[in-house]
Amino acid sequence: MTPANTYASLYRDTLLNDVIPFWQNHSLDREMGGFYTCLDRTGQVYDTDKFIWLQARQVWTFAMLYNRVEQRPDWLDVSRHGADFLQRFGRADDGSWYFSLTRDGNPLIQPYNIFSDCFATMAFGQLSLATGSDEQANLAESTFRQILARRDNPKGHWNKAVAGTRPLKNFALPMILCNLALEIEHLLDKSLVEQTIDECIHEVMDVFYDPALGLIRENVTPDGQVSDSFEGRLLNPGHAIEAMWFIMDLAVRRNDRSLLDRAVQLTLQTLEYAWDADFGGLLYFMDANGHPPQQLEWDQKLWWVHVETLISLLKGYQHTGDERCWQWFEKVHDYTWKHFPDPENGEWFGYLNRRGEVLLPLKGGKWKGCFHIPRGLYQGWKTLDAIARNQTVRQ
Amino acid sequence: MTPANTYASLYRDTLLNDVIPFWQNHSLDREMGGFYTCLDRTGQVYDTDKFIWLQARQVWTFAMLYNRVEQRPDWLDVSRHGADFLQRFGRADDGSWYFSLTRDGNPLIQPYNIFSDCFATMAFGQLSLATGSDEQANLAESTFRQILARRDNPKGHWNKAVAGTRPLKNFALPMILCNLALEIEHLLDKSLVEQTIDECIHEVMDVFYDPALGLIRENVTPDGQVSDSFEGRLLNPGHAIEAMWFIMDLAVRRNDRSLLDRAVQLTLQTLEYAWDADFGGLLYFMDANGHPPQQLEWDQKLWWVHVETLISLLKGYQHTGDERCWQWFEKVHDYTWKHFPDPENGEWFGYLNRRGEVLLPLKGGKWKGCFHIPRGLYQGWKTLDAIARNQTVRQ
Repeated sequence: MTPANTYASLYRDTLLNDVIPFWQNHSLDREMGGFYTCLDRTGQVYDTDKFIWLQARQVWTFAMLYNRVEQRPDWLDVSRHGADFLQRFGRADDGSWYFSLTRDGNPLIQPYNIFSDCFATMAFGQLSLATGSDEQANLAESTFRQILARRDNPKGHWNKAVAGTRPLKNFALPMILCNLALEIEHLLDKSLVEQTIDECIHEVMDVFYDPALGLIRENVTPDGQVSDSFEGRLLNPGHAIEAMWFIMDLAVRRNDRSLLDRAVQLTLQTLEYAWDADFGGLLYFMDANGHPPQQLEWDQKLWWVHVETLISLLKGYQHTGDERCWQWFEKVHDYTWKHFPDPENGEWFGYLNRRGEVLLPLKGGKWKGCFHIPRGLYQGWKTLDAIARNQTVRQ
Repeated sequence: MTPANTYASLYRDTLLNDVIPFWQNHSLDREMGGFYTCLDRTGQVYDTDKFIWLQARQVWTFAMLYNRVEQRPDWLDVSRHGADFLQRFGRADDGSWYFSLTRDGNPLIQPYNIFSDCFATMAFGQLSLATGSDEQANLAESTFRQILARRDNPKGHWNKAVAGTRPLKNFALPMILCNLALEIEHLLDKSLVEQTIDECIHEVMDVFYDPALGLIRENVTPDGQVSDSFEGRLLNPGHAIEAMWFIMDLAVRRNDRSLLDRAVQLTLQTLEYAWDADFGGLLYFMDANGHPPQQLEWDQKLWWVHVETLISLLKGYQHTGDERCWQWFEKVHDYTWKHFPDPENGEWFGYLNRRGEVLLPLKGGKWKGCFHIPRGLYQGWKTLDAIARNQTVRQ
């Protein structure tokens, strides 16, 4: 068994010497502001559109590193560079966040996607911790309140479902709110934080979790029942596993061992269900009844799925000592590090086919930016450090 | 060289003894009306939602066979069975067509997709030829007029693009209107037919065709210029090749040899560009500048792409005698017949991965129904028959 501190060094060094410099070197638009995220395998820009998800996530990442790793002025500069662009161009008149902008900040795609607002909240919440800026803090807090107000109809008039025929609610929002409430805890009343956490834990662990199936469904009816439809049968294993480390963080905070154990168990169940026995790696989408899913990309291996799984396994092992978590961690680690990193040019590929071959030779695009990999490497590093300290104590 | 009449028999027999019986046996919902289209590899129903595209396309297919192959009452019954369901449940109050319905006809997804209307027009136009029904004819004609009225803003308030920032028009609508105008020619004033055809030929061959690239782009600016964006760089080779047989039909009708030659040339150029040298078959999506496309399914091999390519190559060969068309036909035929048909259970798989392995073991779903394969087999059979007669004459 490789000792935890060996892994910890790998995660730390990859974060600080490979992934973060890649984005610092290649992504800043010094002329128009904000970040390029469409970077090819060498870091060259192949498209200049600016997607709010990815602008905000990179603002968050650099502010988080500044707040938690080291107060490096260059990191704070990168975060501010993106935040300035977002503040100038990111919002529609009603304060909601566009989905995408042109290179120079003209709105391209309307604010139909509430996760733009979620990531903007994270970005300005984290940055306000570094800067102490009231304006940034207020922007995070007001955006968070808008999310809560919109949560029952997040797509507004862009929603193509006919109201009432087959109402469904989606897992992504309660899952992200779990994490978001902690991210901006410093800006919210304690009662709102606790209430949001209560609701999110309940939604994730009781409503979207299907005990008969042993897995989390991506969509359920408003009262938490199964819908026998494409949406109702849909499983997104990476999504469910990512949510489990948010839940573990909440369980630790509340000192709730039972919740922690459930989150670990659910991580392992999902992993066993979604692991590809033929080619390794985790499948992207599945149908709970084994029917063909609608998503043509269902069998692909995505970077974020694997990175988030590593975090959940490490946190599970850290907090419970369950050896299954460590065994699975080593297996998923081996797959991930064998297939995703690009030693030739730095950073990681994002999209592999079922066999683990590179499907799209990009480092960033419409959905992949500076977020899951650095967050995962940071979380992995710190968790592995804690595990290594425990191992030392035990020796 | 295999003679054309051997191929013709294969296409005819597969149509009449395999594909059409599969849908007749498995797709009719005798209780609620309309068609099941989500059929697994054996023909079992795995989902009961009813998608207007596929309901209408199956109505069209059975009416077309009745009108052009044989006036079999069972075929007309199938077509009417779907048409009745569409007439009862398919439209919103303003006459536009929903995107999907529940099994019992409740509207699920709003009429955001103008191609639902296009396929409804085809369905009722073709069926009205068989039945002589004024109601069906009026429904086709009024839907066609609604399409023309909506064509500049087909998505209405479901359009997520901010107006004015990056206006683009999409290839699909002018391409389908080429075909639609001929489909319902019997219901339209001659001047409207000719005007629609003029506009469509111009749009397809002059506006969306990029002479510098030698290919058709999927999206261009309103004045036909290149947009250096994901949408503007997008190529959909199967779509472009499918359009070429619509154009060939129009060229034959107008006795326009120059237009015919251009359509043949464009078919061959697109095929050479999109043929997968590594694994065979045509790629689904490409980026004109060689950048990574957004579509994760870009390297998959889809049934309709290959079937439509066979039609364009056969029509090209029939009308011009260009031997390159026949050589490519035999190559694409071999790939298609080796990979898509399912001799064990009948009908064809729709979705293969890049290597030509089955990606989704379904015969029908949200997008694949009773349309491209039977239409392609019918067109192939009849075109091969004509080629065989010419071969006999030449001997």
